[in-house]
Amino acid sequence: MTPTPATAAMLAIGDELLSGRTKDRNIAHLAEVLTVAGIDLKEVRIVGDEPHIIADTLNTLRRSYDYVFTSGGIGPTHDDITADAVGAAFGLAVGEHPEALRRLAENYAARGMEFTEARRRMARTPEGADLIDNPVSVAPGFRLDNVFVMAGVPAVFQAMLGQVIETLPAGQAIGSTAFACPYGEGDIGDPLRLLAKEHPAVVIGSYPKFDGASYSTEIVIRSRDRAALDAAAEAVKTMLAELGRDHPAPAL
Amino acid sequence: MTPTPATAAMLAIGDELLSGRTKDRNIAHLAEVLTVAGIDLKEVRIVGDEPHIIADTLNTLRRSYDYVFTSGGIGPTHDDITADAVGAAFGLAVGEHPEALRRLAENYAARGMEFTEARRRMARTPEGADLIDNPVSVAPGFRLDNVFVMAGVPAVFQAMLGQVIETLPAGQAIGSTAFACPYGEGDIGDPLRLLAKEHPAVVIGSYPKFDGASYSTEIVIRSRDRAALDAAAEAVKTMLAELGRDHPAPAL
Repeated sequence: MTPTPATAAMLAIGDELLSGRTKDRNIAHLAEVLTVAGIDLKEVRIVGDEPHIIADTLNTLRRSYDYVFTSGGIGPTHDDITADAVGAAFGLAVGEHPEALRRLAENYAARGMEFTEARRRMARTPEGADLIDNPVSVAPGFRLDNVFVMAGVPAVFQAMLGQVIETLPAGQAIGSTAFACPYGEGDIGDPLRLLAKEHPAVVIGSYPKFDGASYSTEIVIRSRDRAALDAAAEAVKTMLAELGRDHPAPAL
Repeated sequence: MTPTPATAAMLAIGDELLSGRTKDRNIAHLAEVLTVAGIDLKEVRIVGDEPHIIADTLNTLRRSYDYVFTSGGIGPTHDDITADAVGAAFGLAVGEHPEALRRLAENYAARGMEFTEARRRMARTPEGADLIDNPVSVAPGFRLDNVFVMAGVPAVFQAMLGQVIETLPAGQAIGSTAFACPYGEGDIGDPLRLLAKEHPAVVIGSYPKFDGASYSTEIVIRSRDRAALDAAAEAVKTMLAELGRDHPAPAL
């Protein structure tokens, strides 16, 4: 028996993601990191800079999944309201975290820059939060219970996540094997459906690719059970060989 | 008075988005198109290929927003379960849509390809659905009430959305003005917060850019009220000029 993996959700925060001004780059990165760590990302939500919506959404997610990762809204400007929204979600007061304040003050002093009121905002966390280091630009994220609050700037998000992930118990990583298939999903759909029924311990995905003229497909099989994965891989190879006899590969 | 704009949510469907295998490209596109159309995208959710979760999420979203746009899960393979999940959400039977079946049969006949059982799956819609044309690869999407069910392949999603958006009443488009600001958010946070308070009809966003060494910021102001937008733009220009006196631009 493979143990049940831990589950996770992501909450990406920011009006700019919903207006199309900024293309999110953190969701796919988190998805990849969690997959390697053996943690199942079950759901992602993107919401705007509205404190009550952030708090309500966070409460739903943190009660539904083992871990919640947030991105965005922890900078120094008026639209950076994530710390307050997280505090509201947990019913905790938000104030300046002494260690965060120390790091920020030291950083700006070393750089000869004024430690403005705006910059002090980046030291604010809900009571009892543990800091997440920011090796890129100092201003920390924080952890509260099962919620990890991180920056939206991708370089910072990635650096923070890299530290966080090492603190979480590693699950049994999912193994996967990919097959390039020169046929469209319409050709492989029927045999693939049978194959999926015969290999219930394996998740079989098929991803159409369209080059503007014709479809091909990438077939990906995934499982935490190595033997089941190997058996399904053999079955896919057999299926593709049989399809090859029925459908000669298109001439170039 | 500017009328209240219509609201929208997106539901992106697919295990591949949550595993990191596929990077979503439809969310940002939808966000841009809706912004131009004057419809407010309020929330995005990404869920996996689990019928009950898709149905429950869709029911939440379609009751909360004026429009819901879905992507993914309408192809011919076993993991394409969106039509069934949408049917379950609405409590409607799912069957072959005659016009969809006709288009698909005609297409495969014209191309000398077998109209397999898998391909017939792409004709399935909940009862009473209206088709959304697919000029790229024929297999249609569909509309049911305020829900628009579209493909996950970006070229197809974009083609379907292009048609759908023309059928919706255009809102008052949001006007926006962007300002490149050579200072980090820490420098502009304080004056920008004051400015935001003085211009409540304008949404003011600040988006940090980090080039690996230092931060700059893009300030974006948005409003459906042209006069309010112009007034805020003048205020931002004044603020930047004053910042320029305090903080000479960094030497190159």
